[in-house]
Amino acid sequence: MDLYEALYTTRAMRRVRPDPIPDAVQARILDAAIRAPTGGNAQGWRFLLVDDPEVKGQLGPLYRDCIKQLFETIYAPRIAEAEANPDSPNSIEFGRMHRSALHLAEHFESFPLLLFGFVQLDPTGSSIYPAIWSAMLAARADGVGSTLTTVLLFRFEEMLRIFGIPRDEDWKFACCVTFGYPTGRWGTAPRRPVHEVAYRNRWNEPVGFEVPRPLWPHP
Amino acid sequence: MDLYEALYTTRAMRRVRPDPIPDAVQARILDAAIRAPTGGNAQGWRFLLVDDPEVKGQLGPLYRDCIKQLFETIYAPRIAEAEANPDSPNSIEFGRMHRSALHLAEHFESFPLLLFGFVQLDPTGSSIYPAIWSAMLAARADGVGSTLTTVLLFRFEEMLRIFGIPRDEDWKFACCVTFGYPTGRWGTAPRRPVHEVAYRNRWNEPVGFEVPRPLWPHP
Repeated sequence: MDLYEALYTTRAMRRVRPDPIPDAVQARILDAAIRAPTGGNAQGWRFLLVDDPEVKGQLGPLYRDCIKQLFETIYAPRIAEAEANPDSPNSIEFGRMHRSALHLAEHFESFPLLLFGFVQLDPTGSSIYPAIWSAMLAARADGVGSTLTTVLLFRFEEMLRIFGIPRDEDWKFACCVTFGYPTGRWGTAPRRPVHEVAYRNRWNEPVGFEVPRPLWPHP
Repeated sequence: MDLYEALYTTRAMRRVRPDPIPDAVQARILDAAIRAPTGGNAQGWRFLLVDDPEVKGQLGPLYRDCIKQLFETIYAPRIAEAEANPDSPNSIEFGRMHRSALHLAEHFESFPLLLFGFVQLDPTGSSIYPAIWSAMLAARADGVGSTLTTVLLFRFEEMLRIFGIPRDEDWKFACCVTFGYPTGRWGTAPRRPVHEVAYRNRWNEPVGFEVPRPLWPHP
């Protein structure tokens, strides 16, 4: 697969079929992930794949509690805004994401594969999320959709217990990525254009070029 | 460029030529970056490109102070280990990285382009480092090398002042990525293999497959 196609069309895929992901595909996903950089090449990471229904069954209720908490706290202002202005483009986009996130939570146990990332001595996340994103890009090349979630952080202690992670090794939870063959279509997700979120040399100074439309696919 | 080639050969490139990066390449780098996912598609990010010698001149001494502090504190145990066992593979690899990091610091001002990433409301880093890694992968497709560094975090306050970043907006520094056309060769960096850093269903349980050699290039 072309790099640009992967970068532009790997969007969150929250509706998937229950079909299992073959071991060969899982190996390609993880082998691509570990090529990503880490500070000082320390590789203080662990990648925990979950496909056991019993383990997923323990995680599902936790995950749904976390999503409930997320929408009642951090996302509460956006829900209020969407209710106040239901027809604005932001509200429509947020509503779509909200329904999709609830769908993922309700079907958590039916995702065929989950990837949990853990990391040591990485205060910023810069030594784990490049690898996680590489995993998601490599999955895309095999037609496997993914969604990156961090919401289980709300129930970190129970996660440690479920997975049997030693408390004295100071592993930090980075993410849970759901994987599955998507039912929907790949596509480029809506974004604010580059010239609205980029500066040059000083804050608020124009970056010097405009990119009104996605540069891929090439015209 | 093939996705796998990018994922497997985008390693830290700390020795570069001073040639400028054309605007069209910069636009491709940033337009690829903003396709990456963020929690709730919030896109609470800013990408600050730096190519002004005067601004780089203010940052260079700060950067060198930070690198000095890094090797005197966080990396001190690894330096001690490398001095105690200079011929071990770990020590040789660490020494190579150390010299390369010092080279980057000494030549900070001669990198033609720097990218500073800032983010709001992203406690984990999961909503900025995928975009930064996409920028580095897109640069790779244009033959531009990059190195992801976070060490300027040690001098966050001075960075805010140099860039004129408003203090009341709660922007968090994510990284400084150096860009430039490399003098060295692209290649796959050494990593611990997947089966040593991956588990299945529970901590320390074998992942179920072994990947003794990188899966790319395909045999």
